[in-house]
Amino acid sequence: MRQSQLFTKTLKEAPKDEISINAQLLIRAGFIYKEMAGVYALLPLGLRVVEKIKQIVREEMNAIGGQELIMTALQSKVLWEKTGRWDDKVVDVWFKSQLKSGGEVGLGWSHEEPIGQMMKSYVASYKDLPQYVYQFQTKLRNELRAKSGIMRGREFLMKDAYSFTVDEKQHEGIYEASKVAYMKVFDRLGIGDDTYITFAAGGAFTQFSHEFQTVCDAGEDVIYINKEKNIAINKEILSDEILKDFDITKDDLTETKTAEVGNIFNFGRAKAEDLELKFADETGKQIPVWMGSYGIGITRLMGVLVEKFHDDKGIIWPSRDVAPFDLHLVSLLKSETENPSDELYENLQSMGYEVLYDDRVDARAGQKFADSDLIGIPYRIIISDKTLAQNSVEIVDRRTKESKLVEIKDLSDYLKQNV
Amino acid sequence: MRQSQLFTKTLKEAPKDEISINAQLLIRAGFIYKEMAGVYALLPLGLRVVEKIKQIVREEMNAIGGQELIMTALQSKVLWEKTGRWDDKVVDVWFKSQLKSGGEVGLGWSHEEPIGQMMKSYVASYKDLPQYVYQFQTKLRNELRAKSGIMRGREFLMKDAYSFTVDEKQHEGIYEASKVAYMKVFDRLGIGDDTYITFAAGGAFTQFSHEFQTVCDAGEDVIYINKEKNIAINKEILSDEILKDFDITKDDLTETKTAEVGNIFNFGRAKAEDLELKFADETGKQIPVWMGSYGIGITRLMGVLVEKFHDDKGIIWPSRDVAPFDLHLVSLLKSETENPSDELYENLQSMGYEVLYDDRVDARAGQKFADSDLIGIPYRIIISDKTLAQNSVEIVDRRTKESKLVEIKDLSDYLKQNV
Repeated sequence: MRQSQLFTKTLKEAPKDEISINAQLLIRAGFIYKEMAGVYALLPLGLRVVEKIKQIVREEMNAIGGQELIMTALQSKVLWEKTGRWDDKVVDVWFKSQLKSGGEVGLGWSHEEPIGQMMKSYVASYKDLPQYVYQFQTKLRNELRAKSGIMRGREFLMKDAYSFTVDEKQHEGIYEASKVAYMKVFDRLGIGDDTYITFAAGGAFTQFSHEFQTVCDAGEDVIYINKEKNIAINKEILSDEILKDFDITKDDLTETKTAEVGNIFNFGRAKAEDLELKFADETGKQIPVWMGSYGIGITRLMGVLVEKFHDDKGIIWPSRDVAPFDLHLVSLLKSETENPSDELYENLQSMGYEVLYDDRVDARAGQKFADSDLIGIPYRIIISDKTLAQNSVEIVDRRTKESKLVEIKDLSDYLKQNV
Repeated sequence: MRQSQLFTKTLKEAPKDEISINAQLLIRAGFIYKEMAGVYALLPLGLRVVEKIKQIVREEMNAIGGQELIMTALQSKVLWEKTGRWDDKVVDVWFKSQLKSGGEVGLGWSHEEPIGQMMKSYVASYKDLPQYVYQFQTKLRNELRAKSGIMRGREFLMKDAYSFTVDEKQHEGIYEASKVAYMKVFDRLGIGDDTYITFAAGGAFTQFSHEFQTVCDAGEDVIYINKEKNIAINKEILSDEILKDFDITKDDLTETKTAEVGNIFNFGRAKAEDLELKFADETGKQIPVWMGSYGIGITRLMGVLVEKFHDDKGIIWPSRDVAPFDLHLVSLLKSETENPSDELYENLQSMGYEVLYDDRVDARAGQKFADSDLIGIPYRIIISDKTLAQNSVEIVDRRTKESKLVEIKDLSDYLKQNV
């Protein structure tokens, strides 16, 4: 994309009430726009990052048999009353509204209930199970405070998956496969080494759920880690009893600030019992379905990446897999016609790279470099009269700041090996 | 995709309160699920169709310089008060809710106001214009009645685009380019010949807006068409004065029921004036931006396609461009191992086709054909002991019902020429 045509511009300052680093940088660089506290629009650069994160998650969900669908924002009061979660005293993040035709509706903050209800149309026998469905859905949560930028919004994008199985054994298969798939996702996003499968509070049915916690100073969670034993425990559940269960002392654990990027939860048969979602087993007996739920915070992940990968000049996307573009081509050439940088732009695209091309004629070199640092695409290719005099371009690695002159004839090979 | 693994099943009956053909067929075939009146979830088959429609629209929007973004569902009261559209007496489809932190919020039924407001961060000078941005956004509209299935929902997906220009001339360029792009979209969807650019009510500023009306008995609009003169006029504005302006009599016009699949609207400078969205012209003078808006009803289009292309057995998707899959491979073979249909399934996919593969071993031929008719993929490939005895498969065209035996060695060529 030609930067001269991108409607967003970098901003010197973020809104004064924005205290989080992720939102400050993402707003200044033109990835997001603050609609109100905890509510952000995704601008072209931000949408590209979010779509890349979604695609990584989609591929790993499909690989373990997930089927994509999308439920609705509007939620039925009757349905949520069935499971006892309509009352604001039970769930304190509801947005509710009135139907003109009469009656109340809720706005989806979670979708376990409607997906379970929907499954009643399709599950009758043990032969119809297991099933594993997922969606990318905008969740609305009426948070009292929203101060972590896109890491805790009132409106945010989540991948939520739900499994429907006949028994604990079938459930465990999907639950364990999901753990592996999730870690693949976080590896591909560049935060695998810093993400811990963490024991967290269970529910009425299970002792524990599992959270995927990524080391991050801006995170809202605290976990205790023992790397050698590969144990991580959320502070919320740490007790003498738990320590004893894990055969570990508190001295063996390191306290760490983290952000929860995913969680998986075993409902047992309790949720399906409330919803009357049942199947007939081999003998014809009606049994409530065994359910699990599996979340990943998509927009939160964009925030976590920015919190973890930035410097005082801007964002540093960890790889092309999550960057808005693969390459940032910055032209310092003056002429507007027969521009060799136009040709290079076309060539890079035909090599298969997604390129943001800073073709602005009215911006100075300093401004272009500052914008490029702020936007944070991993590799910058500078073309100028100086580099062209040596039939070359300059390639700058955003992370290491290393710069290298590469002859244009060798560029294709260089990029193949490095980008 | 293997049909045995698809969690949805075809249903004999749609919900009793569902009177529209589009929703009846889409529910029975497993494309959508009815959450409540006017609110439908998109199941895997339906999501695939919607994503295909979105991709066609996206390509045509990008081709005329559109930049994709996504605004938010939650809407600021202050902002909509600025343009006088917060009051329920002015806009009667608001869903509104209370913030826990205090104050009211709205749920987005349209996004002209927030996109105009957002543009204030990026437009300062005439050099920053023109801009053309679009999104695929879930709109929430608190309709008193919802009886047309997915053709008029309380929650639906819309593509809305907005143009920002310096003056009427620059505006007209984008407006006319949008007309052409829209007709390309409807051509690609298979409804181009039945879709009319129709004069409709303008606003405070312009005499007319333009609607894209598709001939459809289930539509909620009535238009008057003169094919020879290529004139279409919405009944709502037809008057003696209008007839005189168009130099036509009512006898020259044919009354037709239609569904509005798109509309484009010229705001002039009025909207930007309300929003105080201004740019500096060459002399430094502050002038309100000239704005236009451009809508296409994405989920409505899925409904219109079903209304127009179906028979008593089910849906007939007009082409692979909008069908959930390119081919429906139906196996009538009995053996579960070393199945030649598995091999054919793999081969068709490596030829580049998206295939729904009815590999169910417990379904009879009659059930499989009935399901295939209901789902409506344009081409069905039947593989059975009978066809294999002739080294062939049977290919059935869902539209013409024509059936043809094709030798497996010739299949690739046949599909290239026909599908």
